Amino acid sequence: MRARHKPWADDYLKENADIVDQTPTDRKGNWSSAFSNSQPIHLEIGTGKGQFVCGMAKQFPETNFIGMEVVKSIIVSAVEKVNETDCENIRLINENAEDLLEIFKPGEIDTIYLNFSDPWPKNRHEKRRLTYRTFLESYKTILKENGKLVLKTDNQGLFEYSLVSFSQFGCRLEEVSLDLHAMEDPTNIMTEYEEKFSAKGQPIYRAVVTFT
Amino acid sequence: MRARHKPWADDYLKENADIVDQTPTDRKGNWSSAFSNSQPIHLEIGTGKGQFVCGMAKQFPETNFIGMEVVKSIIVSAVEKVNETDCENIRLINENAEDLLEIFKPGEIDTIYLNFSDPWPKNRHEKRRLTYRTFLESYKTILKENGKLVLKTDNQGLFEYSLVSFSQFGCRLEEVSLDLHAMEDPTNIMTEYEEKFSAKGQPIYRAVVTFT
Ligand SMILES: C[S@@+](CC[C@H](N)C(=O)[O-])C[C@H]1O[C@@H](n2cnc3c(N)ncnc32)[C@H](O)[C@@H]1O
Ligand SMILES: C[S@@+](CC[C@H](N)C(=O)[O-])C[C@H]1O[C@@H](n2cnc3c(N)ncnc32)[C@H](O)[C@@H]1O
Repeated sequence: MRARHKPWADDYLKENADIVDQTPTDRKGNWSSAFSNSQPIHLEIGTGKGQFVCGMAKQFPETNFIGMEVVKSIIVSAVEKVNETDCENIRLINENAEDLLEIFKPGEIDTIYLNFSDPWPKNRHEKRRLTYRTFLESYKTILKENGKLVLKTDNQGLFEYSLVSFSQFGCRLEEVSLDLHAMEDPTNIMTEYEEKFSAKGQPIYRAVVTFT
Repeated sequence: MRARHKPWADDYLKENADIVDQTPTDRKGNWSSAFSNSQPIHLEIGTGKGQFVCGMAKQFPETNFIGMEVVKSIIVSAVEKVNETDCENIRLINENAEDLLEIFKPGEIDTIYLNFSDPWPKNRHEKRRLTYRTFLESYKTILKENGKLVLKTDNQGLFEYSLVSFSQFGCRLEEVSLDLHAMEDPTNIMTEYEEKFSAKGQPIYRAVVTFT
């Protein structure tokens, strides 16, 4: 999936450097400059094809959104969507969540979204789950005081794991829903995966936690 | 539901004083004497007709079980079940969870079970939910160090509320299941309500927490 197999993707991302920041580590501590304003910054990790981040940016013009996606061929679709959306308050980065601390300064982010993160169901892959404690440690660092982490998923195993991981890390659970779509919420922006799984009748789980 | 409407229930409970302790506050700090042994004591709050406590007592003869039920006409059915079960390690008490601290000494209980507790869905009844913080405070007091609270319910609203209440009280979530019956577990003893709701296809939720 990486660059050398898809030189067209590399070229496309470079052409869209105004949307996909090419040197995100240089922005560390200075992300407001990428948006030329000091609005709060929300970060989605594992943005996929960008539907969530684009919908949110439209709904909340006074918030800046950064979508992080590790797979180059997937982030290309997100760039296309941002181009169609025509919002000034979105940037994308083609990076891995493992490198968050090299990209963001402590307290630089207001809210982090994990949407339908890969569940990694095998025990031996626990460390790859985006709610494993090493990731929670990074989130805690880059979030401002009282900053929120919002997790949405259809995956029962990942959600159960995450609730326990949050608790054992010392997070404070602020809200939880075991069937997000049972109540109509016009402010909920659906992701690609959310549309797919809720159409199959699966309940969507959501948790909101803070770090103290 | 109280005694003066059901004198027969009063008489029946008195006749079965070996099972239904008539002066539970006198046992405070001394519950082992009721069982004439020093086995760990597990308490179910809202025992209903007693199926859970009887099933558990049979499965775990080296644990003592106390079933607490506030409604006299309901506890009568539990007494009948205990009589049929013929286990030495069960006692019942016709008491309200509000009075726990008058009945048990700090650290006297090993595990507390809340099974299909009344959900009290209206906000103004929040304080009546058995996972409201005043109840958690009592549970923490009467549980020994590292003692567990185990909640099972089919009620989505109560379970969501309880997860948040546990977290905000500072409990540590040890285990959570969002569909207990999805995996076969021959050690799971079903309650009356559990049989009824799972037969309707509703998922059964369970959480295990400790107090630190
Ligand atoms: C199952 S998809 C969900 C996509 C989108 N959030 C949605 O809900 O439709 C998970 C996405 O996260 C990305 N991803 C997985 N691990 C990542 C990591 N460590 N850093 C950044 N992105 C990651 C994957 O490449 C994939 O695009
Ligand atoms: C919905 S029923 C569930 C019965 C049983 N645990 C089951 O799962 O089948 C709840 C039971 O809890 C009892 N209860 C409710 N509040 C109580 C309290 N504060 N103290 C003791 N028992 C209570 C009720 O009388 C009722 O029998």
